[in-house]
Amino acid sequence: MKICIVGSSGHYVYALRGIKEDPDAKIVGISPGCEGENIERLFSQVNELGFAPEVYSNPIRMFEELKPDIAVINTFFYKNSELAIEAMKRGIHVYVEKPIALSIEELEELKSVWRQTKVKLSSMLGLRYTPHFWTAYKLIKENKIGEIRLLHAQKSYKLGNRPDFYKQRRTYGGTIPWVGIHAIDWIYWLSGKKFKLVFARHSRLYNNDHGELETTAFCSFVMEDEIFATVNIDYLRPATAPTHDDDRIRIVGTKGILEVVNEKVYLLNYETKEMTEVLLDNPPVVFLDFINEIRGKDKCLVSGEDSFYTTYISLLARKSADENKSISL
Amino acid sequence: MKICIVGSSGHYVYALRGIKEDPDAKIVGISPGCEGENIERLFSQVNELGFAPEVYSNPIRMFEELKPDIAVINTFFYKNSELAIEAMKRGIHVYVEKPIALSIEELEELKSVWRQTKVKLSSMLGLRYTPHFWTAYKLIKENKIGEIRLLHAQKSYKLGNRPDFYKQRRTYGGTIPWVGIHAIDWIYWLSGKKFKLVFARHSRLYNNDHGELETTAFCSFVMEDEIFATVNIDYLRPATAPTHDDDRIRIVGTKGILEVVNEKVYLLNYETKEMTEVLLDNPPVVFLDFINEIRGKDKCLVSGEDSFYTTYISLLARKSADENKSISL
Repeated sequence: MKICIVGSSGHYVYALRGIKEDPDAKIVGISPGCEGENIERLFSQVNELGFAPEVYSNPIRMFEELKPDIAVINTFFYKNSELAIEAMKRGIHVYVEKPIALSIEELEELKSVWRQTKVKLSSMLGLRYTPHFWTAYKLIKENKIGEIRLLHAQKSYKLGNRPDFYKQRRTYGGTIPWVGIHAIDWIYWLSGKKFKLVFARHSRLYNNDHGELETTAFCSFVMEDEIFATVNIDYLRPATAPTHDDDRIRIVGTKGILEVVNEKVYLLNYETKEMTEVLLDNPPVVFLDFINEIRGKDKCLVSGEDSFYTTYISLLARKSADENKSISL
Repeated sequence: MKICIVGSSGHYVYALRGIKEDPDAKIVGISPGCEGENIERLFSQVNELGFAPEVYSNPIRMFEELKPDIAVINTFFYKNSELAIEAMKRGIHVYVEKPIALSIEELEELKSVWRQTKVKLSSMLGLRYTPHFWTAYKLIKENKIGEIRLLHAQKSYKLGNRPDFYKQRRTYGGTIPWVGIHAIDWIYWLSGKKFKLVFARHSRLYNNDHGELETTAFCSFVMEDEIFATVNIDYLRPATAPTHDDDRIRIVGTKGILEVVNEKVYLLNYETKEMTEVLLDNPPVVFLDFINEIRGKDKCLVSGEDSFYTTYISLLARKSADENKSISL
């Protein structure tokens, strides 16, 4: 299984994590995705794993010369979808940073090429593979909280000083698609329900000279069966906080309530009687299950369909926020 | 200070709490507010406090004969506003269950009588007087989190078996005005900002034969200065949980983040470095500060204006949910 990595502006470490667990996976080439993208850190991390990949300056040339099985694509966000299309057109399976496109038009094109080429696609919605979110998923599948009725998810990040491409909508895509997409994905994945309506807002105020980057946002969703979900997103986590992010979800069902907070899972139902910490389960290994899907051995936890759908909902939420209106699906 | 209590279907215990602390306050009469309202428990609690009030069957007659200074009004919800008007028209100050009216028309009438009669009015938004919410308020006033940018509040209740008047919108008013109003009030009080737009939904599914009562709801708000707020409301807290309610708020500011959960307050800012529990402050005594405002000695924490505004926003949120549309203010 020959793998190339394009860019290092996203979560390529997810790919490294899976590759490390697979004796037959090999990183054969790396390349920046854009002019000006520094891949030194990627290079040294790939080296530490024991690979000596060829280093290209042009990802397309890399695809053509090395003919990898999989391209891992995580460059400046606005280039990911274009490069994924180039890879797919050459019969290469793609593991792409989320959101997998920055506009609905790009997303449609990506989906159309994916359908035609029939390659496999997955995206870096890697939080599904954390023990806490995976355990929440298992508990819901085991019917510990009954029918899901109400969800609230939180994404809170430190802002720090971000690269210039974060400062323009055109190159960054927006905080709802970049950060909020995780919360949207949890809601979709954990409830198993489709979105029917979205109402969202975002604000650039207090973004500490980050141009067009939105500092705060919310999304509210009506889903199938009158299930409701809200999301809070912010870049205002103090720099001194012990972790970069503060990811949470609270899920209210007809038979219990489940929470993920501080990378722990808590369950309240008629058996637990009070909010009780749940022992964490072992999730599948991120990216390894994508490799195994390509081998025909397994199903990847983040399917192509999931990647398209979650990106689509994020882009609709951004549109709702931009245009100050609710959008029905 | 002569006090009459009408009904016992709401939070009259707030009034008892204040009266207990005031040697010059005296409960002189009690009465049901509606036919069929049982006030035995109220009677015995008032007795335990050492009062021997006259017991009426008709509250208006009680107002006329006893001429109290204050009427505490908490009967079946749909009668509160009407009885408050009757009291005010007789020059009696009123302490009314929230929401203080079940429709915008009723609210307008109440406000108009209040303006004409110039009596004092406060409402049972008693959670402001809890040590945890009061401490949150103080921390914000002390500028511990900078400018507020994003809020999320939660109300989660056990449903149990509720009286029949909860089962009809006409007599109950709806879950957003009855339960959600507290969350709306925290958002308004703690941010000090006005609401500019509301988008809300509610659902009656899984209400365990409670007729028109809504089991779940959310509200999302855009406030002044692009401040955002969301609210989750549910009646799905398991009956076995240790407390009736699970009240929370998380407030994100430009310099820190503050949370109220489990009746505790946590602060994360550049000084605390991590989420740190804060020592609780002593709040004013509920209702006692209303008595003192009437004496001209103090300002009540829940003003007449606050009571009108919070009820108004709750009723607009209900309208948004009923009509499936966002409403601008």
